[in-house]
This record gives sequence, structure tokens and C-alpha cells, in this order.
Amino acid sequence: MRIYLAGPDVFLPDAAAMAAAKKAICTRHGMTGVFPLDPVDSAEADAVADRFLQIYFKNEAHIRSCDALIANLTPFRGPSADAGTVYELGFMRALGRPVLGYANTDQTFLDRTLAFLGGTAQERAPGDWVDAEGMHLESFGRTDNLMIDGGILASGGLLATRAVPEAERWSDLGAFEECVAALAARRG
Amino acid sequence: MRIYLAGPDVFLPDAAAMAAAKKAICTRHGMTGVFPLDPVDSAEADAVADRFLQIYFKNEAHIRSCDALIANLTPFRGPSADAGTVYELGFMRALGRPVLGYANTDQTFLDRTLAFLGGTAQERAPGDWVDAEGMHLESFGRTDNLMIDGGILASGGLLATRAVPEAERWSDLGAFEECVAALAARRG
Repeated sequence: MRIYLAGPDVFLPDAAAMAAAKKAICTRHGMTGVFPLDPVDSAEADAVADRFLQIYFKNEAHIRSCDALIANLTPFRGPSADAGTVYELGFMRALGRPVLGYANTDQTFLDRTLAFLGGTAQERAPGDWVDAEGMHLESFGRTDNLMIDGGILASGGLLATRAVPEAERWSDLGAFEECVAALAARRG
Repeated sequence: MRIYLAGPDVFLPDAAAMAAAKKAICTRHGMTGVFPLDPVDSAEADAVADRFLQIYFKNEAHIRSCDALIANLTPFRGPSADAGTVYELGFMRALGRPVLGYANTDQTFLDRTLAFLGGTAQERAPGDWVDAEGMHLESFGRTDNLMIDGGILASGGLLATRAVPEAERWSDLGAFEECVAALAARRG
């Protein structure tokens, strides 16, 4: 089973080391990890000149070639997960294949959004929060926007969360391995 | 042609008015706008108890029932677009249908991320930025994460951007109408 390893891990200073570490965990569970930066043939990528679009088409080719996806949903520069990762999660869910995710935080989406807004949100009624522009805050007690949590649950996947020290949130692979083990168990 | 109207507009205090305004623009161009909060039949939603998961399944049903998607990608509580919207964009792209988007900002993703990081980023070489943890910043001069811009371009869609006063960024529908007109022209 080929697993697409979605996440902002591609932005890490040691992205290659992280790719190797995740692949080693996949191998240990009898799976093959596919990292976004891995080489891949894509006629669509070859046909365009823009570097960003080449990368886009290569990532699409990787995702289409995989049987499942595990997303690193650890909050990235804001209350939510990395936008590229979220896009890929939705993409794979629409292909009908299992999507799983992990986040190295045990805070809810609401709590992170409240922290992000820095005291400018208002609680109009118990659990009914709005920001300074009157825009609603999701308060379902979930890990991230309901489309993220919902897509994972809808596909029968696992969303593993774990409180880790902030300095280790990009390196701790405990919750990631939970997802790999869940996929291995699912395959039976 | 049915157009799914993805966006954080659902969080607006006047979400119903925004839905009506967007639908009126679609109608003017011979299209049908479908707002996430519209009623829809979903056996999957009926089968679950959690409210967030009911909403998830209803949104999926809406997207599957539409011929195209226009996403409001105006930055939402961070440098990127709303996470739920981005998920839906990826989902529709994987279904092979046209995806378009608009953002009421003319700042690049890099400039917004630099502003978000508040002076803590470093430029290691011209155009090569990292944050305080050494994590890379995309610097392709695009509107958002390359998966967002790339998915729209890959589907042949339009990503319309527009500088509007900050107070009007959730109400200005000029760039949205550009997208509707582009879809109408594409249909011929």
C-alpha cells in the first residue's frame, strides 16, 4: 500500500531527513511512504514552464498514484493546518481513498482560534463565539475546521492528536505512526 | 450550470444575505448558485448524530451535485484562505470539474506570510525566506499556497484578485462576479 505523506514537512530545513524517517516507519508497518518531493513522472508538469505549477502537477501525480494519505495537520502559521496539506486531503477524499491525519496539539480548533484572535472575540451565548467583525467561530470541539475532521471520519480514517512540547511539534512522529498502524490494521 | 459557492461567507453575521447576493449574480449570468447552508438531501448526513459531521456530509453532497466551484480565497485568520474552503477546492478539482477562486487582496502569499511572522523571518538568499524555526516560505509570487493557485490553473479556471479596502473585503463581490462571468464565457 502506497501512502502519500502530506504535510508542511516539505518546508522543514531537514525535509529529506523527515522524508526518510516517515518512510522508515511506513516500511516497518509493511507500507510504502511517498514524499511530495520524491521524483515522479508527470507529462502535465513537463508541459508547463512555471516552477510552482510543475510542483503542483507532480504532487497531483503522486496523490493519484497512492492508495491512502496521511496528513500532518499540526497547526501551521495560524489556527489551522497548512493550506496545501488541506487541499491534498480534500483531493484524496474525493478520489474515494482513505485519508488520515495527525496533529501534534491537544488544543481544540476553537481554543487555537481564540488564542489567535488575542481576546478580540466575543461569546454572544454559551459556546457561540464571534470575532471582531462578527464572523462566527466553529465550536464543535474538533481539531480543525469541520471539513478536515469530517473528511477523515467520513473516509473511515483516524485523526490522531497528541500534546507534545512546542519545540518538538515538527519532529515528533508518535501520532504519525499511530496513523500508519491504523492503516496497516485496516488492511488486515 | 450549478456553481458551488465555497467560502468563509458561511461565518458572516449576514450569511443569508451574502448567499442571496451571490446567487443573484449567478442568476444574472445564467447560472445557479448553491450555498453551503442550502438544504440538501444526504442519507450519510441522516445516518450520523454529530452536527459537524452532518454539515460535512451535506457540503459533500452539494459539491458532488455541482458542475463547478468558485472559492472565496480572501485570507481568513492567517496568511491563507479558510481551511474548509481549501479542502472543498481540492475535493472539486479531484472530481475533474472546473474550480475558480477570488481573493480580495492584491498582496502575495509571501508578503502576507512575512507580515504574519512580524519580522521574525530571515532572507538567507534573495527570495529564499525561512521563519524562526528554519521552515521555508513559498516565494513564487502567487496568491496562496501553490496547491491552491495550481489547482485552479490546472483546471483551466480563473483566480481573480482585487485590492479592496479591508472593511469591504468580505462584502465586495467584484472579483466573485469576474469568476462567474469567466464560467459563463467558458460555457459559451
